[in-house]
Amino acid sequence: MKKVNWSQEVSIQRSVDQGSEADRQIVQDIIEQVKLSGDKALFEFTLKWDKAKLNTLHVTQEEIQQALADIDPELKQDLEEAADNIRRFHTLQLREDIVQPLDAESYLAYRFLPMDAAGLYVPGGTAAYPSSVLMNAIPAKVAGVKKLVITTPPSADGTIPTGVLVAAAIAGVDEIYKVGGAQAIAALAYGTESIPKVDKITGPGNRFVALAKREVFGTVSIDSIAGPSEVAVLADETAFAADVAADLLAQAEHDPLACSILITTSDKLADEVAVEVERQLQTLPREEIARASIEAYGTSYIVESMDQAIAAVNQLAPEHLEIMTRDAEEVSKQIRHAGAIFIGRYSSEPIGDYFAGTNHVLPTNSTARFSSGLSVEDFQKKTSVIYYTKELWQENYPKVARLARMEQLEGHARAVEIRRDLEDN
Amino acid sequence: MKKVNWSQEVSIQRSVDQGSEADRQIVQDIIEQVKLSGDKALFEFTLKWDKAKLNTLHVTQEEIQQALADIDPELKQDLEEAADNIRRFHTLQLREDIVQPLDAESYLAYRFLPMDAAGLYVPGGTAAYPSSVLMNAIPAKVAGVKKLVITTPPSADGTIPTGVLVAAAIAGVDEIYKVGGAQAIAALAYGTESIPKVDKITGPGNRFVALAKREVFGTVSIDSIAGPSEVAVLADETAFAADVAADLLAQAEHDPLACSILITTSDKLADEVAVEVERQLQTLPREEIARASIEAYGTSYIVESMDQAIAAVNQLAPEHLEIMTRDAEEVSKQIRHAGAIFIGRYSSEPIGDYFAGTNHVLPTNSTARFSSGLSVEDFQKKTSVIYYTKELWQENYPKVARLARMEQLEGHARAVEIRRDLEDN
Repeated sequence: MKKVNWSQEVSIQRSVDQGSEADRQIVQDIIEQVKLSGDKALFEFTLKWDKAKLNTLHVTQEEIQQALADIDPELKQDLEEAADNIRRFHTLQLREDIVQPLDAESYLAYRFLPMDAAGLYVPGGTAAYPSSVLMNAIPAKVAGVKKLVITTPPSADGTIPTGVLVAAAIAGVDEIYKVGGAQAIAALAYGTESIPKVDKITGPGNRFVALAKREVFGTVSIDSIAGPSEVAVLADETAFAADVAADLLAQAEHDPLACSILITTSDKLADEVAVEVERQLQTLPREEIARASIEAYGTSYIVESMDQAIAAVNQLAPEHLEIMTRDAEEVSKQIRHAGAIFIGRYSSEPIGDYFAGTNHVLPTNSTARFSSGLSVEDFQKKTSVIYYTKELWQENYPKVARLARMEQLEGHARAVEIRRDLEDN
Repeated sequence: MKKVNWSQEVSIQRSVDQGSEADRQIVQDIIEQVKLSGDKALFEFTLKWDKAKLNTLHVTQEEIQQALADIDPELKQDLEEAADNIRRFHTLQLREDIVQPLDAESYLAYRFLPMDAAGLYVPGGTAAYPSSVLMNAIPAKVAGVKKLVITTPPSADGTIPTGVLVAAAIAGVDEIYKVGGAQAIAALAYGTESIPKVDKITGPGNRFVALAKREVFGTVSIDSIAGPSEVAVLADETAFAADVAADLLAQAEHDPLACSILITTSDKLADEVAVEVERQLQTLPREEIARASIEAYGTSYIVESMDQAIAAVNQLAPEHLEIMTRDAEEVSKQIRHAGAIFIGRYSSEPIGDYFAGTNHVLPTNSTARFSSGLSVEDFQKKTSVIYYTKELWQENYPKVARLARMEQLEGHARAVEIRRDLEDN
């Protein structure tokens, strides 16, 4: 961990690999192929890249039942409890329709409606995280999405990881398909014989998946392309160095591009954390990744006051913020920009990743300044409703006509006036 | 108006001009120039394209006062009343923070926070619509955005249209700058000596503006790039042909790419509407534009039943939907996909464009399937908060550790466990 004094110029933004022009070309070709020949293309690409020869893309009930039988019952229970927590917190996000009466009969309204269909991309291999399945699928189901499908690349033997199947079953996913990469995104965006066209695609993926999501953006809605993850720990001398170090490393073990920083009023804590990070690194299974991240981005920023610390956090807008200070809750109320805030030493960030009930899909790379974590609203849309009675129209149409004419839109003015000409019909 | 029987294959999606590669290059160069030389570049581009030689980009209080003095008092009153209506409806969209208690002390929370700064682009010339200023600016102010700025291209004499200045004053816009085009978008995204860097950019513009918004997307948040506008009128034999025709033309006069369609169970109405459209076209100031739109896209779809009509609307997901049928309100409750719904013959669409209080920035080109009109939420973000006490941590950390190890993230497991090792400190 580097140790430096805080300065206004600090940023945790990292340039994200957008993929090369060659990659983009590959992705565009894949999308064209899928639009052109549907399932046939999906089978071919799956054989080519996943080395899996499939007869059907659809995961069967038998496979799901098998997964439910195979999984460690304790783990299954943990996943179910986590799912209940996520469902409960996300259900609180649901909104009643808004109605604003204008007179006895007239009103304006704002209706919240679910999308018809959503697709969740689940990466393969070691990145096939059951927790991500819960975090993406449950908000969609809580929102009321009728058709929620998963696409995920199979192993060469054509199987899907047990944890993913179990998490999907617990989350109430409707269908699962064995297809990954850009071809899966294309299938969800345009539909094939097997795979339904969806309205929104969410979930992480490699750079081909990210490029494909960019390409289909507009045809369907997509979630924001997640950048490398980060954590900022805001701590004073009351924090425990070992806690801080462990939480910094939990972030660092994700990715060499992950960014773990400490913002502290205590020079002593910064020194202790540096020692603890090194000590804990030495026994960490993912030491290599975590060390690369810490060496590249791991930094302790020394601030002169809690006010400066808070200003620093608001400038950085971190994805995750842990607050381990006196009056941590009070401090948290001064944070304007953070994806998620973890208050106090017992709110370790992984509790949010897996269990507490908040979403772990959060804005990275300082985008918390203007964006939010995944939520129920991401799977809904809003329709405004205008109901004017004759009386209300009569009272207001001359104003509307004047405003329209100010903008030289005579047709608009005539539309509201023609009711006058006809009102005795 | 063409008249055809409804078929499943109907779509109102029009391909939107994404701008040529040459355009993209021009825009990228402009953005680089602005990043490089700030205000200097803005003055140069404004002289080059708007033929305006400026000493300052900032609109002065004097200019605003002058505009307030110059505008027709009746129009000013209309704008103020419209602004009040918009403010009232959008204020209803504000949400209380969500708190979910977990035990006597622990809780999860969901905090709604405004962005710090937003930028509104207002096009020049005849497209400088005061109504768009109100519709974009008021939701930002209601959301709590502290710094809301407008950029808009000046006329060659360096002035800004009176209506725009008045609407900005009424809406509470903080600053107005005389700069347009891609250079304005670059200034808002990266900041210059005069113009503050914002977190979100909204508002319509020409293809250079749209391309620039695409380029800076990610650095800042942007609204969706609006496509050509459309209206669908769902009517039965109780509707008046002249009303329907006038509302179709109000849409058509916007743009040759605008799409105005009628979906009706009444063949007779369709024939009458066709006659009325032609009759009303002949005296419409913007006849040329409206006729081009009607000839290209104006269509009456004959359906066999109200159920089929509703299915048709949900398939098309129109930006604007007018319902002029028996039990129009009941019919409206079966609409799953529409940007805004106008119920009954007296809820003519222009009432929503200018006055009622709902937003007129709405999802076009069938994107209402997965997106919504501009709202207060577009200028807010959400932060989740996790506060676990020692007791709650103690009860749950083994579950978190198991879930983390299932995903081979040992560092995550150790982070929650290390509190155990330290808990006697």
